[in-house]
Amino acid sequence: MYQQPVFTKRTIMTPGPVEAHPSVLRQMGQTILGQFDPEFLQIMDEVKEMLRVPFQTKNEQAFAIDGTSRSGLETGLFALIEPGDKVLVPCYGRFAYLLGEICERAHADVVYLEKDWEAPFAEADVIAAIKEHQPKIVAMVHGETANAQMQPLAEIGQFCRENDIFFVVDMVATFGGTETKVDEWQIDLAVAGTQKCLSVPSGLSLITYNDRVQKYVAGRYQKELGLGADARNDRHIQSNYLDLSQLEKYWGPERLNHHTEATTMIYGLHEGLRLLLQEGIENAYARHQENNRILTEGMQKMGLKMFGNEGTKTPTVIPVLIPEGIDGEKVRALLLDHYKIEIASSFGDLKGKIWRVGNMGYSSRKENVLSFLSAFETVLKNQGYQFEVGAGSSYALSEYAK
Amino acid sequence: MYQQPVFTKRTIMTPGPVEAHPSVLRQMGQTILGQFDPEFLQIMDEVKEMLRVPFQTKNEQAFAIDGTSRSGLETGLFALIEPGDKVLVPCYGRFAYLLGEICERAHADVVYLEKDWEAPFAEADVIAAIKEHQPKIVAMVHGETANAQMQPLAEIGQFCRENDIFFVVDMVATFGGTETKVDEWQIDLAVAGTQKCLSVPSGLSLITYNDRVQKYVAGRYQKELGLGADARNDRHIQSNYLDLSQLEKYWGPERLNHHTEATTMIYGLHEGLRLLLQEGIENAYARHQENNRILTEGMQKMGLKMFGNEGTKTPTVIPVLIPEGIDGEKVRALLLDHYKIEIASSFGDLKGKIWRVGNMGYSSRKENVLSFLSAFETVLKNQGYQFEVGAGSSYALSEYAK
Repeated sequence: MYQQPVFTKRTIMTPGPVEAHPSVLRQMGQTILGQFDPEFLQIMDEVKEMLRVPFQTKNEQAFAIDGTSRSGLETGLFALIEPGDKVLVPCYGRFAYLLGEICERAHADVVYLEKDWEAPFAEADVIAAIKEHQPKIVAMVHGETANAQMQPLAEIGQFCRENDIFFVVDMVATFGGTETKVDEWQIDLAVAGTQKCLSVPSGLSLITYNDRVQKYVAGRYQKELGLGADARNDRHIQSNYLDLSQLEKYWGPERLNHHTEATTMIYGLHEGLRLLLQEGIENAYARHQENNRILTEGMQKMGLKMFGNEGTKTPTVIPVLIPEGIDGEKVRALLLDHYKIEIASSFGDLKGKIWRVGNMGYSSRKENVLSFLSAFETVLKNQGYQFEVGAGSSYALSEYAK
Repeated sequence: MYQQPVFTKRTIMTPGPVEAHPSVLRQMGQTILGQFDPEFLQIMDEVKEMLRVPFQTKNEQAFAIDGTSRSGLETGLFALIEPGDKVLVPCYGRFAYLLGEICERAHADVVYLEKDWEAPFAEADVIAAIKEHQPKIVAMVHGETANAQMQPLAEIGQFCRENDIFFVVDMVATFGGTETKVDEWQIDLAVAGTQKCLSVPSGLSLITYNDRVQKYVAGRYQKELGLGADARNDRHIQSNYLDLSQLEKYWGPERLNHHTEATTMIYGLHEGLRLLLQEGIENAYARHQENNRILTEGMQKMGLKMFGNEGTKTPTVIPVLIPEGIDGEKVRALLLDHYKIEIASSFGDLKGKIWRVGNMGYSSRKENVLSFLSAFETVLKNQGYQFEVGAGSSYALSEYAK
């Protein structure tokens, strides 16, 4: 017989999934409602309204998709791409390649603009590439969790808008933790997730898009076979499950019966958004900024160096260079096994070179920062790293206790 | 400011989503684990093992996909279909057309075999159509929720196997509530959901497939850009999110980093499966059968007639003909508003003609059957339906109290 598991409480200092807010988990324990129950429809409408706040948008369209973050990226890109369309994907980290992968599966003509992972692009370089390649779509990552770099977007957005190019941005790693100004940066379609700065379990993707996209997508709508009069559309989207034109009609007044909504996850999303709005997004951003500063400076006091360009680092991830002679995976294992604290490794060329300390959502709180720094010092000392033990943890306490 | 909602407890007698088992919701409230946390990996392995029991299979591959039921149907069909492949879709209800819709989006050559919705196909008729059309894939629905009919599958499965045709079956509405013999019926790939007879919230799809499918899918694997050495595959699957070849490697020993698993939903799935195995699948099937019998006979004592062929009805849904002169939607609204009991309407030609009373999972229990029948009698009397009030509810109590 299988046992009912009781999981160990972790302090999760990774770039996601992070600790869910206790109130989110409690809300998810509420009774099931049908997906067209009047009480549930009200929750959906409130989710749409609340989502606009952290997306910093007035877009009518802002809702959730029943899949993890990449399902939203696929939904957005599949909605805009028709076979042969040219997409420019500027890459300064791992997740840009995911965007490219998705575009390729939609039979796009993908142009990769590549650079090292030390910093994001100068916006002028992206604009020059747009001029050269004349894409229909530019798809970029706002905050790259692999290297903790963050891309300025406003000039690229302006250029795309002026030239009638769709600008699609992956905000999974920044949404809720730092400014994500969809309207001001003239982003046409943006995607986020729940399991990072929103402190909701993984399993939903969040999407917003403007009238330009909405109009385009409306031209691709195909009513599903089995739901009555069946007009076919030659330009239909290549997925049914991730068909933005249908999903929009489920979240809108038509209430198209597209799928059986994951009501329990939506309860959690509603509560995560409600808590974020209650704190205030500016306060949430300031909290992430402050904890980022103290984590970074604390580790610097321990003699550790950060990876990448300082001025463009996202506050939601701290990329720490693994010191020479130290086994990065051994340090992670000691933290997990003995302190129940989880930090992350990285991807690609950075695998084995940096640790990634997450600073996201409910995990981004003083007691986590302090207990992580103390534990990290003890583990690094245990592993033979030479530094002034106590320098980082003492600094952090003195900063918080000011 | 938005309020923290407190939802009304519903008695959900629809064909899904149904009431989640309280223990499932409690397990979902447990602390978040990272998707590669050793404790979570053990849960994934146990889910794979437990899933084989209700799927009645020895297949190595049995796991969950982070999307609602139709995401699993799309995953399975997209994995097997290459452009131009012929798929035969026999339709005796609404959800067969969803299978066709998905196949069309994968650029299949879809042949629909259509009939009325009163009964499923005679297996010989499907086999004759296979002989005529020579498809690569036959895709069918086991239990149709729209009309409550259930398709015999063993002879079709045998014929497909003998002729090297892939046999794909949608078991969403039957899995966990009645026999779903994947191996004995020679089904190559089967899909189920969580929100029906498993009493877990909506949001996951369940899939199992055999070595034939596994071998085929392995030939379409494409390593994702951004995860290192990037061999391209001309035959790659057209979705990245719903790419079975990648999902299999996430649930297998390779632990491919494909997505951030919806760990909280998997906790719920683990508990739903654990409870089902604890009850014993044969006991669960007998419970559904008994409640189906008493619901059906109880409503017949009220003078109500059932839709469709009796011998092939699924025990998980009871399709009740709305009596002449009675407003079906008014009855549903009275039940929901005053008794907090939800029953369903139907689709297509059956919309407005039948109610569908669900009999699934945790919702399929004595007290629900009894309180539904009493409430239904009172509401029907209120609406002017002529019958012997008390006949159905008294019969049901006498049956249970035997």
